[in-house]
Amino acid sequence: MKRIGIIGGTGYTGSELARILCCHPGVEIVSMTSRQSAGERVGDVHSHLKGLIDISFTSEITGDPDLVFVATPHGVSMHEVPGFMASGVRCIDLSGDYRMHDAEKYEKWYGKKHVDPGNIPKSVYGLPELFRDKIRGAKLVANPGCYATAAILACAPLVSKGLVEKEVNIDAKSGTSGAGASPSPRLHHPNCGASVIPYGVGTHRHTPEIEEILHRYSGKSIELFFVPHLVPIVRGILVDCYMTLRKDMTQDEIANVYRKQYEGEHFVSYREHPSIAGVVASNFAQVGFTKFGGRVVSYGVIDNLVKGASGQAVQNMNIMFGFDEKEGIAAPGLGV
Amino acid sequence: MKRIGIIGGTGYTGSELARILCCHPGVEIVSMTSRQSAGERVGDVHSHLKGLIDISFTSEITGDPDLVFVATPHGVSMHEVPGFMASGVRCIDLSGDYRMHDAEKYEKWYGKKHVDPGNIPKSVYGLPELFRDKIRGAKLVANPGCYATAAILACAPLVSKGLVEKEVNIDAKSGTSGAGASPSPRLHHPNCGASVIPYGVGTHRHTPEIEEILHRYSGKSIELFFVPHLVPIVRGILVDCYMTLRKDMTQDEIANVYRKQYEGEHFVSYREHPSIAGVVASNFAQVGFTKFGGRVVSYGVIDNLVKGASGQAVQNMNIMFGFDEKEGIAAPGLGV
Amino acid sequence: MKRIGIIGGTGYTGSELARILCCHPGVEIVSMTSRQSAGERVGDVHSHLKGLIDISFTSEITGDPDLVFVATPHGVSMHEVPGFMASGVRCIDLSGDYRMHDAEKYEKWYGKKHVDPGNIPKSVYGLPELFRDKIRGAKLVANPGCYATAAILACAPLVSKGLVEKEVNIDAKSGTSGAGASPSPRLHHPNCGASVIPYGVGTHRHTPEIEEILHRYSGKSIELFFVPHLVPIVRGILVDCYMTLRKDMTQDEIANVYRKQYEGEHFVSYREHPSIAGVVASNFAQVGFTKFGGRVVSYGVIDNLVKGASGQAVQNMNIMFGFDEKEGIAAPGLGV
Amino acid sequence: MKRIGIIGGTGYTGSELARILCCHPGVEIVSMTSRQSAGERVGDVHSHLKGLIDISFTSEITGDPDLVFVATPHGVSMHEVPGFMASGVRCIDLSGDYRMHDAEKYEKWYGKKHVDPGNIPKSVYGLPELFRDKIRGAKLVANPGCYATAAILACAPLVSKGLVEKEVNIDAKSGTSGAGASPSPRLHHPNCGASVIPYGVGTHRHTPEIEEILHRYSGKSIELFFVPHLVPIVRGILVDCYMTLRKDMTQDEIANVYRKQYEGEHFVSYREHPSIAGVVASNFAQVGFTKFGGRVVSYGVIDNLVKGASGQAVQNMNIMFGFDEKEGIAAPGLGV
Repeated sequence: MKRIGIIGGTGYTGSELARILCCHPGVEIVSMTSRQSAGERVGDVHSHLKGLIDISFTSEITGDPDLVFVATPHGVSMHEVPGFMASGVRCIDLSGDYRMHDAEKYEKWYGKKHVDPGNIPKSVYGLPELFRDKIRGAKLVANPGCYATAAILACAPLVSKGLVEKEVNIDAKSGTSGAGASPSPRLHHPNCGASVIPYGVGTHRHTPEIEEILHRYSGKSIELFFVPHLVPIVRGILVDCYMTLRKDMTQDEIANVYRKQYEGEHFVSYREHPSIAGVVASNFAQVGFTKFGGRVVSYGVIDNLVKGASGQAVQNMNIMFGFDEKEGIAAPGLGV
Repeated sequence: MKRIGIIGGTGYTGSELARILCCHPGVEIVSMTSRQSAGERVGDVHSHLKGLIDISFTSEITGDPDLVFVATPHGVSMHEVPGFMASGVRCIDLSGDYRMHDAEKYEKWYGKKHVDPGNIPKSVYGLPELFRDKIRGAKLVANPGCYATAAILACAPLVSKGLVEKEVNIDAKSGTSGAGASPSPRLHHPNCGASVIPYGVGTHRHTPEIEEILHRYSGKSIELFFVPHLVPIVRGILVDCYMTLRKDMTQDEIANVYRKQYEGEHFVSYREHPSIAGVVASNFAQVGFTKFGGRVVSYGVIDNLVKGASGQAVQNMNIMFGFDEKEGIAAPGLGV
Repeated sequence: MKRIGIIGGTGYTGSELARILCCHPGVEIVSMTSRQSAGERVGDVHSHLKGLIDISFTSEITGDPDLVFVATPHGVSMHEVPGFMASGVRCIDLSGDYRMHDAEKYEKWYGKKHVDPGNIPKSVYGLPELFRDKIRGAKLVANPGCYATAAILACAPLVSKGLVEKEVNIDAKSGTSGAGASPSPRLHHPNCGASVIPYGVGTHRHTPEIEEILHRYSGKSIELFFVPHLVPIVRGILVDCYMTLRKDMTQDEIANVYRKQYEGEHFVSYREHPSIAGVVASNFAQVGFTKFGGRVVSYGVIDNLVKGASGQAVQNMNIMFGFDEKEGIAAPGLGV
Repeated sequence: MKRIGIIGGTGYTGSELARILCCHPGVEIVSMTSRQSAGERVGDVHSHLKGLIDISFTSEITGDPDLVFVATPHGVSMHEVPGFMASGVRCIDLSGDYRMHDAEKYEKWYGKKHVDPGNIPKSVYGLPELFRDKIRGAKLVANPGCYATAAILACAPLVSKGLVEKEVNIDAKSGTSGAGASPSPRLHHPNCGASVIPYGVGTHRHTPEIEEILHRYSGKSIELFFVPHLVPIVRGILVDCYMTLRKDMTQDEIANVYRKQYEGEHFVSYREHPSIAGVVASNFAQVGFTKFGGRVVSYGVIDNLVKGASGQAVQNMNIMFGFDEKEGIAAPGLGV
């Protein structure tokens, strides 16, 4: 039985980790921290977990965990990780702090200097379908962003084989839980509940993440224009990735590229009609595409809190501990 | 051309007043106040009104209006109204400050002492279908609460004729715009966007309002248990009012009571199947009912921001100024 | 490994059974029938199950199952069940055909004569928290209706102890998946997507089911007025049950009645603020209440397709087979 | 007082025409046809119009109208229009039958031969902000498609001035009312109510319409890849149009192109943050853009049933009759 700590247990990714791990047969949550709720029972703060997790939030990690999930905002993780790394505790960071290997790019997009540059090169990008071997032995996993997960899975097959031009436009649609648990005018139901709202266009931090990871995986460069939108659903992401083919290909040839890429993968598969409803509440991702003349739009769908965050983090943990990769996250999407 | 002031122009009822009045041929908005946006153009704050209202928010009413709408939170209006009343400016107050004629009940339910008890008896409850004659000459109109509008319209026919027992349960469902423009955890989309949430049960301030107004109108007393809910729509209210018949009546007899009550009314009518979609974005209300043995559930539907607030306020203004009662608010509901 | 058949595998409760059972370690789905999809792969019809269930729909049950789930419409099950019962195959019927023990009442509310009256008295109502002991040895389980599950759980504590008057009003709100997979004007998104719609008022078949089961459980009679509504969410039910106390009780005394009723139950618990979001995608139910003078509104929330249908059916199956009652359905609600 | 006929009065665009025209001071609806509802009162079929339109549906147009709106499905209008044209009755066709001037392209995209090629060249495309002068004298107006309205308004400023490359990708999001009043699996609430669904990709008929109209307006050609999506809102469209700049331009320079294009227009304006909520229930459109390096995404938002269909049809009618162009459609969007 592995001992698990969760730093930042009141946010959506922290409570989602607890929701998943409380049914995982190989681990025990020994500690959850929360600045605002320290001293309160986890089940009193997250009432859907009452009776399932029997500890209280603390302000610091206790209980000598084997691995900690860092589910804090960007810029906080890099202050938490070094101590655990120094003590030999493995870390899975759900923030953006260790995803890019270029500290200057971090500074530019995140607007602050990285305080732990030494650990950046040790971090492995936690997208198992692309980097499984490196995750196995990693001490520090940088868990992918939600949009980045969907976009990279949808683009990697064509980009990595050099089949498309380097200019890519991504039009992404996310459920509102992706924006976190803090109330704000944008997330106020009367403002967003019957609308579709572009935001962070040209400035969203998953832009350089997607570019860098596709390059790291395949050596191919893309120039991304990333346009995220809020849609009035709570969970789920659809990304539409607009690409231009470098040579003529048939529908079937492209489909085969997708099928081959994800052959044997349990959680990611090619579908003619990827569907948010088909993956919601699960760790599954579906990718697909439509060809039109020399252009292609590829689709990627995930649950932003599961495959886009906490479920994928548990998938990484399973790999790191040598568990069955599906342990605790095997359930299919709701379908409806 | 009548000159209009709006106190509290950044909230939903204030901007809804501006939205309606900017197309009203008989009035001109000469002044809108806003604490937080003083100095800004109205169209910059409410971008859907850009080009339609060409003034800036001020901190105090200017421009010598003939009538002011007071669209401030409860407890603020009673500080604003006395000055205008003293100067002979007519007031329509959209808050709860002057709805009940019993200052002690106000103190009990609103949790503060009323500072303007002298004007309370002068206030007329602004539900034209029940109090049109008094509204005509009123100096101060207390515009009804949104739930109260729907509930009183649905209950008045049976209650006022003494056809039902005094215990009434109201199960109300409101769109989220009824809760105002300030972000809060309850209105955070991920929390309310796929849920139905009871709130303020037993403490909601429309409880005594509904009781008192039904009594004022008909001399009949009810004992209300009022259970409001948020539903994931932006606009619209449905109230279900559970009543017990005092004597056996047929479906037709009850329907006739409803038809007769609202005969000749433009905005309120009896429907077998009242529909939120049928009234949204309009000043219309629909009422109906289903009988089951000796019990009846009556329904009332409105747009909470129009007939439930600003539209009804304009209807009251039309009556006070002797305009056609439908002026500026004649458009039917969206239907879909 | 128990062998399972599912009759009616294209509807929502059928596919939800498959979704749950495909991860259940104690069973194997050997056969799924579908009139409209016979011959097609299950994963081609329900794309979220592709790769997880590797059989094709057939027109008749094959594979010699130990237990069949009958997930057909009302009126169809009673033609399917007798054959299996005669062959000693245990049945869990998700339709309404065997819920009531009074064939005349069935005829009145369902509008057709019961063709299998002989098996009616053998059926056990599959609400484990009330009838666990009988379920254990049952050959035929009548799985409860979705509304009925929520309503009975919310009312049973007060009704069974004789604490409330017999007149009960239930105002129920359901997600649209409760209405099934067949398109219809009422379920057409433009008609229901921004509205709240009462339907089947006074005629809904869960009315006599709730009355009869509460009586069967406790010997107490209620007279129910049941008013269901569609709300624009996909999954989830909230019932508000309006009752009148027969004697004065404090908030705490009532809360203790609820706590005591569900003490030791894994799936049902008392909460001050029951929340649809807290149970969605899970087999959990939450109940609670608010007292106001001598009246009480009790709340019940469930996922209509899980605790309200297929999850509860699996819970019943677990009991019948002597499995851990939580097997395959242990995961908590989504929370957000 | 002009006399108006509406062919196809039960669909969404037909009832929306009635909703708008019943408050229009310059016209009278003398006849509405409906195959399925002939003989029924309009207010019994569209209950939100009860009391506002006092006629019954007929199977043929009667009452000698000055102008007919043809609100029938594609392929039906071309059978209706010739007769009216021959009798000198002006027509506004809301279907796609007369939008493109190339009958072969019609046949290719609509899958049927055009039966009235003679009237095609007489038709004027009814987008007043681009073709106002021609609309004034038109006998036959082809009212634009909903997506096409939003897309053309968003693209025309840059395309018409030759500022962008000819490859354009449009990612469009529509409320479900755009798909019409007939129930179908795609529009079934459980299937679409918590999802975002691409459909008709590469085959949607607004693709050639947008290309042809932009060319007709400006002489410039684009090659469009159009990807429409259903989003879980009832009304409203957002289009995101991805274009590549042909030369470097500043943010301000581009903004000025937009401002200049729509200077003096009442219904269309440039906004930094176009908002669906700002235009819903109105005839207004908002356009905007974000620049990122050498690429631009331009936005267009409308209410699909108003500016995207019936409101724009009334705007065209106002122009054809010499009315104030805003008559009957002046109200701003809801804002919230």
